[in-house]
Amino acid sequence: MNKGELILKLLDSRDFRRIKDVLKEMNFADIALLFNEIPLEDIPLIFRVLPKDTASDVFAELDNDIREYLIKSFSDDELREVLDLLFVDDTVDIIEEMPASVAKRILKHTDYKTRKQINEILKYPEDSAGSIMTTEFVSLRKDMDVYDAFLKIKATGIDKETIYTLYVTDSKKKLIGLVSTKDLLLSDMEDKIEDIMETNIIYANTLEDREEVVKLFHKYDLLAIPVVDNEKRLIGIITVDDVIDVIVEEDTEDFEKMAAMTPSEDTYFKTSVFTHAKKRFGWLLFLMLSATFTQTIITHYELAFAVVPILASFIPMISDTGGNCGSQSATMVIRGMSLDEIKPKDILKVVKKESAISIMVGVVLSLVNGLRIILTYHNITLAIVLGLTLICTVFMSKILGCILPILAKIIKVDPAVMASPLISTVVDACSLIIYFNIAMNILHI
Amino acid sequence: MNKGELILKLLDSRDFRRIKDVLKEMNFADIALLFNEIPLEDIPLIFRVLPKDTASDVFAELDNDIREYLIKSFSDDELREVLDLLFVDDTVDIIEEMPASVAKRILKHTDYKTRKQINEILKYPEDSAGSIMTTEFVSLRKDMDVYDAFLKIKATGIDKETIYTLYVTDSKKKLIGLVSTKDLLLSDMEDKIEDIMETNIIYANTLEDREEVVKLFHKYDLLAIPVVDNEKRLIGIITVDDVIDVIVEEDTEDFEKMAAMTPSEDTYFKTSVFTHAKKRFGWLLFLMLSATFTQTIITHYELAFAVVPILASFIPMISDTGGNCGSQSATMVIRGMSLDEIKPKDILKVVKKESAISIMVGVVLSLVNGLRIILTYHNITLAIVLGLTLICTVFMSKILGCILPILAKIIKVDPAVMASPLISTVVDACSLIIYFNIAMNILHI
Repeated sequence: MNKGELILKLLDSRDFRRIKDVLKEMNFADIALLFNEIPLEDIPLIFRVLPKDTASDVFAELDNDIREYLIKSFSDDELREVLDLLFVDDTVDIIEEMPASVAKRILKHTDYKTRKQINEILKYPEDSAGSIMTTEFVSLRKDMDVYDAFLKIKATGIDKETIYTLYVTDSKKKLIGLVSTKDLLLSDMEDKIEDIMETNIIYANTLEDREEVVKLFHKYDLLAIPVVDNEKRLIGIITVDDVIDVIVEEDTEDFEKMAAMTPSEDTYFKTSVFTHAKKRFGWLLFLMLSATFTQTIITHYELAFAVVPILASFIPMISDTGGNCGSQSATMVIRGMSLDEIKPKDILKVVKKESAISIMVGVVLSLVNGLRIILTYHNITLAIVLGLTLICTVFMSKILGCILPILAKIIKVDPAVMASPLISTVVDACSLIIYFNIAMNILHI
Repeated sequence: MNKGELILKLLDSRDFRRIKDVLKEMNFADIALLFNEIPLEDIPLIFRVLPKDTASDVFAELDNDIREYLIKSFSDDELREVLDLLFVDDTVDIIEEMPASVAKRILKHTDYKTRKQINEILKYPEDSAGSIMTTEFVSLRKDMDVYDAFLKIKATGIDKETIYTLYVTDSKKKLIGLVSTKDLLLSDMEDKIEDIMETNIIYANTLEDREEVVKLFHKYDLLAIPVVDNEKRLIGIITVDDVIDVIVEEDTEDFEKMAAMTPSEDTYFKTSVFTHAKKRFGWLLFLMLSATFTQTIITHYELAFAVVPILASFIPMISDTGGNCGSQSATMVIRGMSLDEIKPKDILKVVKKESAISIMVGVVLSLVNGLRIILTYHNITLAIVLGLTLICTVFMSKILGCILPILAKIIKVDPAVMASPLISTVVDACSLIIYFNIAMNILHI
C-alpha cells in the first residue's frame, strides 16, 4: 500500500493523528495529487494537519476547484497564514484564476507590501515576462564584501524563491551585476562584490514575451533571469521551475492549435464536456464549410468522372498525400521558428530547401504509385496522369506548408494555427485543380 | 553593429588582439552561435584566443561539424586542455556524435578517472537517465557539520556541475539524504549534516526513461536529481539545464511523429535535403499505398455515383472532417499521456468523455451543414443523409482518435505515431463506408 492509499484508509477511520504522521513523510507535490482523490468536504480537515510550510507548498500546487473550496472554508486567520508563506508569483497565479469575490478576499488578507507587489505583477499583460516573474529576490550593493552577502542571504534568504543568483543594484535600483552563490562560496570572505560580480548580464524586459524568456533559459542554461523595466531597473526575477511550466504550457498550446483546437489551460479530465466541445467547434465548422470550395471544384469537373469514372477514386489518395506533405513542411518550419532555428528572413532559404526535398519526394512517390497502377490497371496513361499530379501536388503542398507559417509569423498570427487545419484546406482545393487539369489535358477529355 | 558583426569585421583585418577583447565581453552561447557564421578555417584561430574557461563552454555548445573540424585541428595538448575543462556528460555527448576515429582520439586524451566515468555513462541505453547524467557531484557524509560541508564545496566545487544540492552517502555509497546549499547557508556552522538533511528523496534509477525524469522535475520543481542504481548507490546526477534540453528534444520528436515524419536530431538547416526527404518518405509512401484501401471502397460504391452524381462531391468534406475530429481527440490524449494526466487505465473514462463530446460536436456540425445543403440544393433528403453521416463519422473518428494512442501506449509503441498519419487513413476508409451505406439506404439506391 503506498502512502496515498494509506491516507485514504486512515481517513475512513478518521485517524487524523496517524494521517498527520504519514503526511509528514510525503512530498508536497504528492500530497497535492492525493487531494484530487479525497472527498471535497474532507480536504480542509487534511489541510489543517499539514505542517505550515508544507501547507503553503501544497496549496500552490492544487487544482483551481480545490483551491477555491479551501479558501471558502478558511477562517480569515487561516487564509492569512497560508498567504504569508506563499511566494508572490504563486499568489498572483491564484488570484488570476479565482472568481472575483475570492480574489478580493485574498487581496484583503495580504499585507500592504505584498498587496503592492501583487498589483504590480497583475498589471503586466498575460504571457509577458512581468506576468510570470516574482518580486522576491536577494539584492546586493557593489561595495559589500562576500561576508556581508552571506549575512544578507541569512537574514532575508528564507523568504526568497532563489538564493543562488544574487543581483547587484545601484542606488537607483538599476541592475549592474550579478553574483552566483557558487562564486560567493568559492571566494574569500573579504572579496568585494564589485570585483567578483558578472557584468555581462542576460536579462529580460518586463514586457517581453514569455516564450522569448524560455529561449534565453534554453540558450544560456540559466537557473534564474532578472527582469528589468525600460530604465533597466530590477523589477523581479523568473526562476527555472516556472520556465519549465511555461515550456510545457506553450508546447501543449502548439499541439492543440496544430490539431485545429482552441487551446485550453485545464487538464483533460478537469475540463467539462461542453468546454471541450466548444474548443473544437470553431475550426471544425470553419474547415467543414471551406470544404464547400473543394466541392465546387469537384462538381465543376463532373464531366471528367462521367468519361473516366476511375478518376474519382484517386481523390482521397491525392488530397491525403498533399495534406500530409503540407503538414510535414509546416511542422518543421513551425518548430524551427519556435526554437529560433528558422527566422522569417530565412524564407527564401527554406523555400529553396523545401523545393529540392519535394522534388525528390514527389518523384519517388510517383514512381511507386505508377508501378502500382500499371500492375493493377495495366494503364500507362493513367500512371502518367497520377505521376505528374503527385509531383505537382507534393511540390505545391510543401511550398505552401513552409510559406504559410512564415507569413503568419510576419503578420503576427501564431504560425501553429497554419499547420494542419488551414494548410489541408488550401492544399485540398489546389491539388484537385492540378489533378483535373492534368487528367483532362492528357486524356483529352 | 553588434559584437558578432564586429568580430566578423575584425576577422577581415586579422586583428586578433581586438577580437580577443571583444570575445571576453561575450557570453559562451553567443560565441558558439557566431561560429556558425565564421569560415571553417578561421574557427581554430578564434578558438585559440578564447579564455580557457569560456573555450570549453563554447566547445560544449558547438554544432557537430564545427566540433569535428576543431578536434581535428587541435594539437594533442590543446585537445587535452579543452577536455579537462568539459563536464563529463558533455564529453559523453560529444563522443556519441563524433565519428569513431575522433571519439577514439578524445578517449585517448582524457585522464584515467574521467575515461572510466565516460565509459560508465556510455554503457547506459540511449534515452535512459544514466545516459544523460553527469558523474560530477558533491557528496557529503552524515557526520560532517555545516562548516565541513562548506570546506568540501570550496575544495571540490569548482569542477562540479551543481553545488546547490549536496548528496549524503553512507560508506557503501548508498544515497541516504540530501542538503541544499540554501539549507547550509541558513544553518549554523556547527549543525550536523545528519540533522539538517532531507531524507525523503526524489531520485531516478539509471535505467529509467529520460521522459520520466522530466516528469519528476516538472512535478517537484527540482534543480537537480540524483541517479541511483538498483542497490540505491549514488551513480550520478542530472541538472535542470539538461532537462530543459530533453523537454525540447522530446516535444520536437512528438511534433515530427504527429506530422508523419521520422524524428531527426539536427536542426532544419544542418540537415541535408536527402536526409530530410528520407525522413519524410516512409510514412508518405505507407499512407499513399494505404489509400488504395479507400480507393477500393469508392470503386465498390460506383453505382451510387452513377445514380446520384452529387454524392461524390461530398467525399472530401466528410473525410476531412473525420480526419480533423480524429486528430483533435488523438492530440488531446497523446499530450495528456505525455504529461501523465491520462493513464492507460483511464481508457473507459476517456471513451465516455469523448463520446459525449463527439455527439455534441456531431449534432452541431450536422445542423449547420444541413442548413447549407437545404439553402443550396433545396434537398432535405440529402441534408438528412449528410447529417447522419457526419454524426456517425465524428463519433467514430473521435473514439478511434482516443483509443488508438492509448492502445499504442499499452503495446509500447509511441502514441504520437498514431496521431495524424494512422488515424486519418483508418478514418477515411470507415467514414466512406458509413457515408455510402447511409446514402444507399435512405436514397434507396
